Amino acid sequence: MTDSQGRAVTIAAIAAEAGVSLPTVSRVLNGRSDVAPHTRERIEQLLREHGYQRRGARPRERARLVDLVFNDLDSPWAVEIIRGVEDAAHAEGVGTVVTAIHRRASATRVWLENLATRASDGAILVTSELDPALRSELQELQVPAVVVDPAGVPSLDVPTIGATDWAGGLSATDHLTGLGHRRIGFVGGPAPLWSSRARLDGYRAGLGAAGVAVDPALVLEGDFGYRSGSECADRLLRLADRPTAVFAANDQMALGVYEAARRRGLRVPEDLSVVGFDDLPQAQWSSPPLTTVHQPLAQMGRLAARTVLRLVQGEPVEGPRIELATRLVVRDSTAPPPG
Amino acid sequence: MTDSQGRAVTIAAIAAEAGVSLPTVSRVLNGRSDVAPHTRERIEQLLREHGYQRRGARPRERARLVDLVFNDLDSPWAVEIIRGVEDAAHAEGVGTVVTAIHRRASATRVWLENLATRASDGAILVTSELDPALRSELQELQVPAVVVDPAGVPSLDVPTIGATDWAGGLSATDHLTGLGHRRIGFVGGPAPLWSSRARLDGYRAGLGAAGVAVDPALVLEGDFGYRSGSECADRLLRLADRPTAVFAANDQMALGVYEAARRRGLRVPEDLSVVGFDDLPQAQWSSPPLTTVHQPLAQMGRLAARTVLRLVQGEPVEGPRIELATRLVVRDSTAPPPG
Repeated sequence: MTDSQGRAVTIAAIAAEAGVSLPTVSRVLNGRSDVAPHTRERIEQLLREHGYQRRGARPRERARLVDLVFNDLDSPWAVEIIRGVEDAAHAEGVGTVVTAIHRRASATRVWLENLATRASDGAILVTSELDPALRSELQELQVPAVVVDPAGVPSLDVPTIGATDWAGGLSATDHLTGLGHRRIGFVGGPAPLWSSRARLDGYRAGLGAAGVAVDPALVLEGDFGYRSGSECADRLLRLADRPTAVFAANDQMALGVYEAARRRGLRVPEDLSVVGFDDLPQAQWSSPPLTTVHQPLAQMGRLAARTVLRLVQGEPVEGPRIELATRLVVRDSTAPPPG
Repeated sequence: MTDSQGRAVTIAAIAAEAGVSLPTVSRVLNGRSDVAPHTRERIEQLLREHGYQRRGARPRERARLVDLVFNDLDSPWAVEIIRGVEDAAHAEGVGTVVTAIHRRASATRVWLENLATRASDGAILVTSELDPALRSELQELQVPAVVVDPAGVPSLDVPTIGATDWAGGLSATDHLTGLGHRRIGFVGGPAPLWSSRARLDGYRAGLGAAGVAVDPALVLEGDFGYRSGSECADRLLRLADRPTAVFAANDQMALGVYEAARRRGLRVPEDLSVVGFDDLPQAQWSSPPLTTVHQPLAQMGRLAARTVLRLVQGEPVEGPRIELATRLVVRDSTAPPPG
């Protein structure tokens, strides 16, 4: 995309100059009829003035780039997803452009403009609500999208890739009941998240299978952060009939549970068993090494990259929703209940 | 870069077809004289056949992309660097293409070809030897480069960005001698690495300042991995006159020291003080939270991005080598030596 002087012209710049939205320019470029005639005329004129070179209609010129979009890059599992996406994309000669949008509409806007400018072939969104407005903008830009670990109910009109959260919650709880635990605390993620709901339900199913009634006093909601893990564990460990084990719905909260136990002089696993979820690298580097539910994050990233590249080439994909298997990894943080 | 049918033509494809290297094609495109006449003729012909569109000589068409290259993406500090680079690049409307080359020449080759194809504006290399061959290829491609945390002696003809490793090693050791420790073990990184050497020398300087002689039995070399941290700590804790504190040259090894202590029934910090280096997010999430030397990784990433973008625009940069300040963050893993 260059003008006649060889400078880069972006459709974002054209949109700004015409005082219209990016999708409107995109509609004109794509020959769509749903643009008011005088708007179309103004945009066409600006495109001519800037000597904007349209891409051939088919096959679309490929930039050999995919955009990988996170809300934030401060989570340690982000790098696991990046690793997987980069691995699969690199193998096909495609570059991975990593972006953080910080849940801000303005940053999302900047990202969409940059995406249009660099003419990325596809987008992978991680733990995002792909809201209808964003989805339609991506459609206008003809950029296929895949969502990894969607925050809400997985939509069926965009491919989504997740893990078997419910089965993971069940396997963690089965492990603890199998060791003889009956008082098992649960520290969950934010209740509205799809993955949080599924992990909690797996915990309930595991207790049910062992004939243990769910005690609401043992079920707390955290925010996936270390501090909330330690605060929830404080509340659990203050109970008169305190749990002998805690299942935390992610590793960071599980490490917070470790710290709450240490502060009370309780040893893991002798006095308290702890299970996490994710199996981030630091689960192995904790002391004791953490028993946790492995979520194949890098594999999810690889699958997301391959799926979006298939969509770019107009090939069929497996289905609207794929869940990769979780599996329990038993390390040193779990043991039979004391005495 | 498209051929007359609108398909992408890469100079890598031209190089392959001509049976020459990428830089040779690049030399022809740049009008350089150091190419054999018959080679030049063959390349020129292929360029014509494919209708290869040369970029205007000046100003260079900008792809608004920078490549960020790691050896591996399995280190938890990679995401910190990515976060900083992405932040600064995004603010300038530039995308960050993340690549892992796994220390393999073949992957480096693929990366260089992809870099040429997408016409990235600049490259940031993390903990790499920017070997002379790679440097000259980047020069041929007219891609300016910056090296973050260079593995070897920082070169003076490419800007490099690091942290004050020596001062960090000194501050960690000062902290421990200030608490009254005299037997302080050191678990270092790989000896050839620049950063390892500087941290070790900071440790020696700290002991010297406190009038403590360096005991070679207390100075061990690890590989920056968790396991090597725990193995080195095992050796230190087996000594008859065992240390009361250990300074590990990164956080992962420090967490390995925790685990070695736990297995011997030693409590941190009551029986053994531990200091790390890096201040990765998990340093706060360890139990007890780790006292460590903060390395401003995200800030280093931001500076690297701004430096390479300045080079892209032909603007001057601060100097060939910038070191950002480290600082000691005291948490709960250090205390006076046991009575």
